[in-house]
Amino acid sequence: MSEHMIIPTIEDMFAAHERIKPHIHNTPVLTSSYFNELTGAELFFKCENFQKAGVFKARGASNAVFSLSDDMLEKGVATHSSGNHALSLSYAAGRRGIPCSVVMPRTAPQAKKDAVKGYGGTIIECEPSTSSREAVFAEVVAESGAEFVHPYNDHRVIAGQGTCSRELIGQVENLDAVIAPIGGGGMVSGTCLTLSNLAPSTKIYAAEPEQADDAMRSLKAGHIIADDAPDTIADGLKVPLKDLTWHFVSNHVTDILTVSEQEIIDAMKLIWKRMKIVMEPSSAVPLASIIKNRNTFAGKRVGVIITGGNVDLDLLPWLKK
Amino acid sequence: MSEHMIIPTIEDMFAAHERIKPHIHNTPVLTSSYFNELTGAELFFKCENFQKAGVFKARGASNAVFSLSDDMLEKGVATHSSGNHALSLSYAAGRRGIPCSVVMPRTAPQAKKDAVKGYGGTIIECEPSTSSREAVFAEVVAESGAEFVHPYNDHRVIAGQGTCSRELIGQVENLDAVIAPIGGGGMVSGTCLTLSNLAPSTKIYAAEPEQADDAMRSLKAGHIIADDAPDTIADGLKVPLKDLTWHFVSNHVTDILTVSEQEIIDAMKLIWKRMKIVMEPSSAVPLASIIKNRNTFAGKRVGVIITGGNVDLDLLPWLKK
Repeated sequence: MSEHMIIPTIEDMFAAHERIKPHIHNTPVLTSSYFNELTGAELFFKCENFQKAGVFKARGASNAVFSLSDDMLEKGVATHSSGNHALSLSYAAGRRGIPCSVVMPRTAPQAKKDAVKGYGGTIIECEPSTSSREAVFAEVVAESGAEFVHPYNDHRVIAGQGTCSRELIGQVENLDAVIAPIGGGGMVSGTCLTLSNLAPSTKIYAAEPEQADDAMRSLKAGHIIADDAPDTIADGLKVPLKDLTWHFVSNHVTDILTVSEQEIIDAMKLIWKRMKIVMEPSSAVPLASIIKNRNTFAGKRVGVIITGGNVDLDLLPWLKK
Repeated sequence: MSEHMIIPTIEDMFAAHERIKPHIHNTPVLTSSYFNELTGAELFFKCENFQKAGVFKARGASNAVFSLSDDMLEKGVATHSSGNHALSLSYAAGRRGIPCSVVMPRTAPQAKKDAVKGYGGTIIECEPSTSSREAVFAEVVAESGAEFVHPYNDHRVIAGQGTCSRELIGQVENLDAVIAPIGGGGMVSGTCLTLSNLAPSTKIYAAEPEQADDAMRSLKAGHIIADDAPDTIADGLKVPLKDLTWHFVSNHVTDILTVSEQEIIDAMKLIWKRMKIVMEPSSAVPLASIIKNRNTFAGKRVGVIITGGNVDLDLLPWLKK
């Protein structure tokens, strides 16, 4: 997809932050004495589930949309996405008043499809596999002439996602580590961009479902491993790394931890119950990893990115048979 | 139950605030552009679902427990409750290291029973009616000699609940109105105590389920009307007014609005979906009332008390058949 690789710089992140500030929330950081006791760590939850469009991806999407040149505004933007980038790009396009086409798996949660339409996006459905998504998307771009905004392998998107940990280190001092879920690696890459420059002693961890552990295997192998259509409840984490996110992950991530589906569901329900916040299965993967790897995090000050809150409330995973 | 009526003063509320500050959260106020647009009002959600024990009642319970005289500490405290006061009193008693007995309907949500036990409280079950609860409770107090802390008809409890709107008016200026759900009237009375003294131009509204509309009928009739065992999804709002709360409600509440069970469930699900917070059916009653009475609130700055977040996540009302 990417003919050339533009690696965003810390100046790009600063510029992104200025550009998107009117369109995003500086989201709150919550703490929980219950989870501190459970894990032995001091946890700081950066609540991107309270972000515009319900997800951190509003940052990157807003940066891409608001850095578009005037001659592209009529053609608009297009993307493929497991859902959250789709609605984030629709949100940002709506704020700028330009069209937005999104290719989305037909199996994506209805709540996410409704949200995309609610923001004014146009959905084109594909089969639930990476190969189908990319094929259908190529057609859409060829026909519309729209600007492609990749969900994560895009320097504008990564610079935008990097604003999240810039806020976090302004809200919480002396973090020993930050942990975020990893799918395609957009949030993790933005985190690497910001922290490697502004807080280089803070370690960066990524967390992933065992059933979609391609990023962990990539890091061990030293090159990108991509699976076609992995299956996990954490539906935002099914996509593979790409060259740009691989650049950041391979250079700056200390470790990638994996957890089972049941561990994700248990952590998700426990966060809802104790912290009274609605968040996605993907967002529970970091806490599930901290609970599982107590020795790695106990005694540390750890930033935990709660990436999003767009859940189908009629299909909660602990209620499935 | 109350042999004499002690009406708390604004000085009692100030003293309560100093007393309980180490044991409670100054909870955040959230806003939602979605709900502002939906209602035409400017809404400020005071999130007591993030409070200690998951509910505003941690305020009043902490005030009662931490104002106990030393000679009562060994006998401890006791109460009856639909659940939230029970776990709040257990929480406060646990912080002070004294025993806590609670009489609770056998039909109360399992999540609330578990939480009471989790804080170290001892549960004695009764039938789900006001008459049974009061009878069983009388036995418990006679046997243990424990200090009775009524869930709401208690000057210490009302002074404690009043700290919530003291925080709120410090967080948000120039509120035209504040609205809270009403069951026994503890939160509403505390709100009346604080606002009638510190923000007398702010109107106070209460909101109630149609299926437990005894407070609305009381206000119209000019005297307390108590129903035995009303049935509503908003299980914290089934109890009747008592003399002390009636004093505040009859003197300071502008109006009591009622909504149907379906309106409560719809508002609850919509808040979860759009604001990404977990809250109880009772907490959705005020927003449901604002949506239903648009003309009363449009154009106004309105504080909305989200009273609590202790929900059984396995029994969400929109998933019932």
